[in-house]
Amino acid sequence: MRAVDLIRKKRDYGEHSREEIDFLISGYTRGEIPDYQMAAWLMATWIRGLNRSELAALTESMLYSGEVVNLSDLPGRKVDKHSTGGVGDKTSLILAPIVAAGGLIVPMISGRGLGHTGGTLDKLESIPGFNTSLSLDEFRHVLQDCGMALIGQTAEIAPADKKIYALRDATSTVENIGLICASIMSKKLAEGIDALVLDVKTGSGAFMQKEADAVLLAEVMVDTAKRMGKKAVALITDMNQPLGRFAGHSHEVIESIEVLKNRGPKDLRDLSIELSAWMFFLGERTKTLDEGRRLSEMIISSGQALTKFSEGIRLQGGDERVIEDYAKLPQARLRAEVLSESQGFIAATNCMEFGIALAMLGGGREKKEDKIDHGVGLEFHKRIGGRVEKNEPLVTIFYNSDARLAEAKARIANSFQISAEKPPDPPLIRRLIGV
Amino acid sequence: MRAVDLIRKKRDYGEHSREEIDFLISGYTRGEIPDYQMAAWLMATWIRGLNRSELAALTESMLYSGEVVNLSDLPGRKVDKHSTGGVGDKTSLILAPIVAAGGLIVPMISGRGLGHTGGTLDKLESIPGFNTSLSLDEFRHVLQDCGMALIGQTAEIAPADKKIYALRDATSTVENIGLICASIMSKKLAEGIDALVLDVKTGSGAFMQKEADAVLLAEVMVDTAKRMGKKAVALITDMNQPLGRFAGHSHEVIESIEVLKNRGPKDLRDLSIELSAWMFFLGERTKTLDEGRRLSEMIISSGQALTKFSEGIRLQGGDERVIEDYAKLPQARLRAEVLSESQGFIAATNCMEFGIALAMLGGGREKKEDKIDHGVGLEFHKRIGGRVEKNEPLVTIFYNSDARLAEAKARIANSFQISAEKPPDPPLIRRLIGV
Repeated sequence: MRAVDLIRKKRDYGEHSREEIDFLISGYTRGEIPDYQMAAWLMATWIRGLNRSELAALTESMLYSGEVVNLSDLPGRKVDKHSTGGVGDKTSLILAPIVAAGGLIVPMISGRGLGHTGGTLDKLESIPGFNTSLSLDEFRHVLQDCGMALIGQTAEIAPADKKIYALRDATSTVENIGLICASIMSKKLAEGIDALVLDVKTGSGAFMQKEADAVLLAEVMVDTAKRMGKKAVALITDMNQPLGRFAGHSHEVIESIEVLKNRGPKDLRDLSIELSAWMFFLGERTKTLDEGRRLSEMIISSGQALTKFSEGIRLQGGDERVIEDYAKLPQARLRAEVLSESQGFIAATNCMEFGIALAMLGGGREKKEDKIDHGVGLEFHKRIGGRVEKNEPLVTIFYNSDARLAEAKARIANSFQISAEKPPDPPLIRRLIGV
Repeated sequence: MRAVDLIRKKRDYGEHSREEIDFLISGYTRGEIPDYQMAAWLMATWIRGLNRSELAALTESMLYSGEVVNLSDLPGRKVDKHSTGGVGDKTSLILAPIVAAGGLIVPMISGRGLGHTGGTLDKLESIPGFNTSLSLDEFRHVLQDCGMALIGQTAEIAPADKKIYALRDATSTVENIGLICASIMSKKLAEGIDALVLDVKTGSGAFMQKEADAVLLAEVMVDTAKRMGKKAVALITDMNQPLGRFAGHSHEVIESIEVLKNRGPKDLRDLSIELSAWMFFLGERTKTLDEGRRLSEMIISSGQALTKFSEGIRLQGGDERVIEDYAKLPQARLRAEVLSESQGFIAATNCMEFGIALAMLGGGREKKEDKIDHGVGLEFHKRIGGRVEKNEPLVTIFYNSDARLAEAKARIANSFQISAEKPPDPPLIRRLIGV
């Protein structure tokens, strides 16, 4: 078998066998197939696509390129959630303690933010001392002690994905449903989970702006998980505006704690309860989804979720006093308001622009190497359908450097569409896939 | 400008500006753009294509990546011919002396054979001492002395093409009309020519098996040459069977000398006269094409072409006594016959298979690193339309090692289609492009 022939095959609309995909992925991971051949194959694959069986083979090859965590010695079902990312999406910080407090194991391996999206690891790292770089052994110990652990991808987990993702990023072969699915699922399935809830975002702040693309990605991910013997469901959820009231690292930690304190904005709380209910249901903790919802609400209102979060922070080296004292989190020194230039109702937002503006101010990464300013954030005062008067604040910016403030303000201001008529509220959960 | 954005642009059906193509080609040649980004761009380009103005820009960028030979101090028009390659195609060895003897300058930079095709340089190197690796300075001196010189691509000529071609070969991005055209034309235009005759092969032994593909390649090459201010014409010629009676290096040198001695097979002689007539006409040596044909015939029959070839061999360090003593050329020790298994008429041949069988026996390269056995060859006893009896020899194989003889014999035998009815003779010259 030769890489050059497999590149030609994909270029010419061919279908790869499992052996061919294994040859490519294991050869590339071991350094026997050079970057330039993988780059050509990735572009051919980006354009020609992968069918379901190729995708399953690719996911498995990438999964077995590294270690698959075996958590069978820990009692209880292991469940996780993955979100395709957006602006203000901090549900992982809320779900993990709810579901762990409910008695399931949540082995969550997350990513970092890039471009307009935030990353769970980055958010957690605004908590002083919080260590997301645990070894797999430490990961296992934390899980054993408190049922939840939130770490980054280790060198042992799906090394093929790590290498391929870096290459995709440099060769414009990122946004392809098959390649995205294999990348996500190879990592998630390496966690040793029994069930996975997928939160596939769609709308102006999502990677999959069109709902049809989100549905397709959701379908292939659920299908891939099921082929691998895992329970899975995907929720197609709205990302036409930020989730919750805040975006930015410290701010999102605070907002997550607020939800765990039985407060916080309705949309964030509703989605968190819905996702954790699905985790309980797929993890066989509850017999029905509705029972899962009630369990989640009870775990929040009783304070068990908050206690669990505190425990999790402490076990990963973080200062759990942030829960009671938000001032222990990094804070921005300055603030500015973006005012509405007209009056009416918020008809739509170009939500991705908020994330880009945030990154521009240091509260995200424009390039992978960028350092994050955890205190920088945005507070959104208005939601779609909300009434706004002229000169009323739309967004408060929390920032430290005004180098690019004007540009960020303009981006934010231009991202609001204001109309005379009140638009209908966008549904938060649009579809369920795989039920 | 960033390579990753240009890859995305081509992937998404975008049209590159001249500046963008210059950025990619010069950046890659200088080593600033890595192989993997160029590989992804090549695959995107292979699939999405290049329009005429992108192609002109690509050709020029590659051309100006190196030195463009300036032959303006040599008196007389400079003309060349390029063939897209096939089996038994040795016309360069015949045309160069005819046209140089006719008073034009023939600065011919040729390639090596790979796969089923032979290369002019390899054929010339079967002449003891013949040096195809002249520097551009030596090249110029030989041209000055005898009006013809046949050399290989130097490091100074189109270095971008050299680097890109190696990458295309490893990434299955070779067979694309735009990329082929830019590769050929960037080298040919670097020769300092005024006019170029293109021999675009089509049929079972050609890269462009379908005539429509050959016509399209011919059109874009002629168009590119004309945009660069050169006279150009393309002949679409038949490669459904080998050109002439022999394939293999020494054998092709001998057959070429035979034509220069006013003998040799009719098809090879006819095509050589036609191509040299076009060179005379485009080089403004004759007022009409027909006058060019008569001049070519006169130059052959008078012995001037043979004398010129002898002079050319001597000036490039070769032993010109091969012209009178073919035994000075490498010869194979053994011979075998491929016999017809049935009787009838030769209806068709799978001509590429002859070239592959030849390479398999050492008379060509299966991989770029392979060494060539110049004495190995094939003699074709029958042409399409010819009558054959059962057990009559179809092909004589001249070889040195029988390691893969059985395989080669089978390939050759299976490449003949024999039918009860006599098929029409295939026309040698099918079309003219650019007239």
